[in-house]
Amino acid sequence: MPETRSSNARKPKRRRAAADYERIFHPRAIAILGVSTEDGFGFGAGMFRAISAMGFEGGIYPVNPRGGAFDGREIYRSVEELPDPVDFAVIAVAARHVPAALEACLKKGIAGAEILSSGFSELGTDEGRRLENEISRIADRGICVVGPNCFGIYCPKSGLTLLPGPDLSRETGPVGFVAQSGGISIDFAHAGKWMGVKFSKMVSFGNGADLREAELLHYFADDPETQVVSLYIEGIKDGDAFFRELAKTAAKKPVIVLKGGLSRAGARSVASHTASMGGSREIWSSILKQARAVEVHDTEELAQTTLAFAGLPGRAFRNISIVGGGGAIGVTACDTAESYGIEIPPLSADLRTRIEGMLPRPGSSATNPIDVANPFVAPAILKEVLLAAAADPQIDLQILVSLLFHYKTIARFMGRPIAEVTPFRELATAVRDVVEQTGKPVVAVLSSARRDADSLDVIEMTALARQEYLRCGIPVFDELHDALRAVSHMNDYYEGRIK
Amino acid sequence: MPETRSSNARKPKRRRAAADYERIFHPRAIAILGVSTEDGFGFGAGMFRAISAMGFEGGIYPVNPRGGAFDGREIYRSVEELPDPVDFAVIAVAARHVPAALEACLKKGIAGAEILSSGFSELGTDEGRRLENEISRIADRGICVVGPNCFGIYCPKSGLTLLPGPDLSRETGPVGFVAQSGGISIDFAHAGKWMGVKFSKMVSFGNGADLREAELLHYFADDPETQVVSLYIEGIKDGDAFFRELAKTAAKKPVIVLKGGLSRAGARSVASHTASMGGSREIWSSILKQARAVEVHDTEELAQTTLAFAGLPGRAFRNISIVGGGGAIGVTACDTAESYGIEIPPLSADLRTRIEGMLPRPGSSATNPIDVANPFVAPAILKEVLLAAAADPQIDLQILVSLLFHYKTIARFMGRPIAEVTPFRELATAVRDVVEQTGKPVVAVLSSARRDADSLDVIEMTALARQEYLRCGIPVFDELHDALRAVSHMNDYYEGRIK
Repeated sequence: MPETRSSNARKPKRRRAAADYERIFHPRAIAILGVSTEDGFGFGAGMFRAISAMGFEGGIYPVNPRGGAFDGREIYRSVEELPDPVDFAVIAVAARHVPAALEACLKKGIAGAEILSSGFSELGTDEGRRLENEISRIADRGICVVGPNCFGIYCPKSGLTLLPGPDLSRETGPVGFVAQSGGISIDFAHAGKWMGVKFSKMVSFGNGADLREAELLHYFADDPETQVVSLYIEGIKDGDAFFRELAKTAAKKPVIVLKGGLSRAGARSVASHTASMGGSREIWSSILKQARAVEVHDTEELAQTTLAFAGLPGRAFRNISIVGGGGAIGVTACDTAESYGIEIPPLSADLRTRIEGMLPRPGSSATNPIDVANPFVAPAILKEVLLAAAADPQIDLQILVSLLFHYKTIARFMGRPIAEVTPFRELATAVRDVVEQTGKPVVAVLSSARRDADSLDVIEMTALARQEYLRCGIPVFDELHDALRAVSHMNDYYEGRIK
Repeated sequence: MPETRSSNARKPKRRRAAADYERIFHPRAIAILGVSTEDGFGFGAGMFRAISAMGFEGGIYPVNPRGGAFDGREIYRSVEELPDPVDFAVIAVAARHVPAALEACLKKGIAGAEILSSGFSELGTDEGRRLENEISRIADRGICVVGPNCFGIYCPKSGLTLLPGPDLSRETGPVGFVAQSGGISIDFAHAGKWMGVKFSKMVSFGNGADLREAELLHYFADDPETQVVSLYIEGIKDGDAFFRELAKTAAKKPVIVLKGGLSRAGARSVASHTASMGGSREIWSSILKQARAVEVHDTEELAQTTLAFAGLPGRAFRNISIVGGGGAIGVTACDTAESYGIEIPPLSADLRTRIEGMLPRPGSSATNPIDVANPFVAPAILKEVLLAAAADPQIDLQILVSLLFHYKTIARFMGRPIAEVTPFRELATAVRDVVEQTGKPVVAVLSSARRDADSLDVIEMTALARQEYLRCGIPVFDELHDALRAVSHMNDYYEGRIK
């Protein structure tokens, strides 16, 4: 890795080159400042172990002025004496030592550093603010700073991970995520693993003394690895820049925004959490609409909406069919769909007749929603039903509701494990075939009413079924409501209703 | 059991005596009509096995004109020849044989019968309607009919169970539930088991040829075993009677209503599902408000709202404190709380100082929401924090957010199972102590971002932690949003805003 940047170069902010980001997100070597031999649970030691566990392929150099060894590796006494060029640093030393540590990184030619330490402006003290200003000034001289008071960067492709995430997924994907909050970031990173949301890069920037939302939006707008951008923000420091970058990015790719701190109590909480200001709900909604960003209202909606944008073709889906066993599910689904402006049109008469012929009688219904009468209808039949419904030119998306937990009754009757009697693999393959043959996407809803401590076999089977659907490229939601709400956000974005 | 009722007595509907209900919900003996020796998956055989598995203590008599044996038990050829008095019957014979079967039950002096068979008015055929009318006429002569086209009655105390629920909970509780839909009923019965919603009686009445929502409301209004009534309805047959009973019941105890079929597509689906009519959303909302019923919009909201009403003292909670590790959770919680009209007031200065002294620094905040900085704060400290916050006279409910899944990191580091390193038992006990000492309820939120197939240990620990909280009488929600929404429904009901 050539050290192209003079250590004392003064760089104006928001002019970082793509090459700098490349060194930060895909570093060839990392220094971890603050790995202590004594404190096994310290941030530095934790991050050392986490990045190792992620299988990061480059060099990882622990640094501590006291030297010694950690996990059988030599601890270097300073950044200066590191044997090789380093692209990225993790700083986990006490707040008062952070400026010197950052300065050393800048001198070494390191492109960027994440500062996990807290004890800065979020304290509301003069000393905290002074230290944070010092960090900003050093950053201005040519090193990109993430934090302080943050969980850092997660980049599945390179193996960078958030504090304290040793077991996040290494699968890369289309979602760029940005948040001040480390807690929300690590939760979303974990949730993404089972939900099937795969990230290009995730940045938890904490107090944001240097790198913040506007610049990251600017970066993601042109990042070819990122197709969907999700943000959780509590406050912004430069409203004009943020709005400009938001609108520019949203014109290129979907940007989903959760704004925290819009209530009075929330604003109080923001102030102590990341030392930035909130704003009024109405103003924020209007700003987001003008920028054509997608506004969501809680972290689940954020995750589900991101899943839909990342997992479905980029377009609106106004007319859908719903297929499932258990008519009442169809009834409430219709009500929810209507409240989100989604149509569930009756299928044409001939298709209805064709579908009726496939379904068990009585108890089934071939109107849309299509009630297949019970949760045990064979995947091969469900496939034919989905193929037939897709033949209606009105339909542009299908939702298949699977209540696989009911197979527990059959498993019990047959005296066999539920994972063996539930045809989830066949189901996922059948659905994939339908998507391939019809060109119309299918979304799976995998509700489970059985989650008690005695139903671990059901929970495991459901998790495996979800995995199987995801492997076949089928987005999965827990509840129909979640799927419909997520699709409605896509409709708003792609039909340009957000403006 | 004395057979007090003459088999040919003509009883007007909705005048059934408490004694009849007693025989139906807590029968001493049950006949199951339609247990076939050949078809192991048939409704009759399934129900026979399910009621046996539930541990029903009374006699269970299988009936089939062909005779024979089932699971080593003699199958009786007719109801007439059953050796003992029977209180309740399960009818699972083909639709065309149902009237004769019901007639035989009436003659035998059986108080009530659930008809699981379908093939009646829901078919939309003349023959289906004719058969259903016949059922109604037989019922009018003195036997209470649940169904047809239903999953029947679940009564944990006696061991009656829905089709096909062999493993529902035997724990009785305060919730009476009524639905046309069998699917929604069985799902709620299963979900209740892990959510901690315990039922007095659940009735899935399907087409409702006899017993329906209005009469059941009338019954639940005065049933001492039922403190909270929940309804899922698709359509009603007698609007005036329904509204009258709804208002009368809601004046005595909370009634939570989910109305399906309010959209155009939903109404279509209702028609094929249980052959009743829907209605417009606005009219329904207004009817429910006038009756002081609590309106919810999907099955999850129904279950969560029922949990809150059943698990918390019957009153409004306007000012709450939120305690958790991870400040951003506090921020979004505040926003959600405000949108539901719930206040998260700042604590008094002296309490804030006291709490600050207990928490790790930096990263914590003693304003309300109280951010304890990380998910590993010891239960003993959380207990002190909750006790201190409860000392503020403003606070009338506390919410503790536990992100226990993060203990996976510690478990991994220590090389021990997560269920061993996570102090969930101590946590639940600490919270119970707080409730006992302060008299102010605490609600737990047990979010888990880890649900992938590789995190079964985390899922199991979370299920055990939930069980432990429930054992200590603490209602548990998956997400803060769910808890806040449920509490807001209680506020509306108990402050009389629904009117």
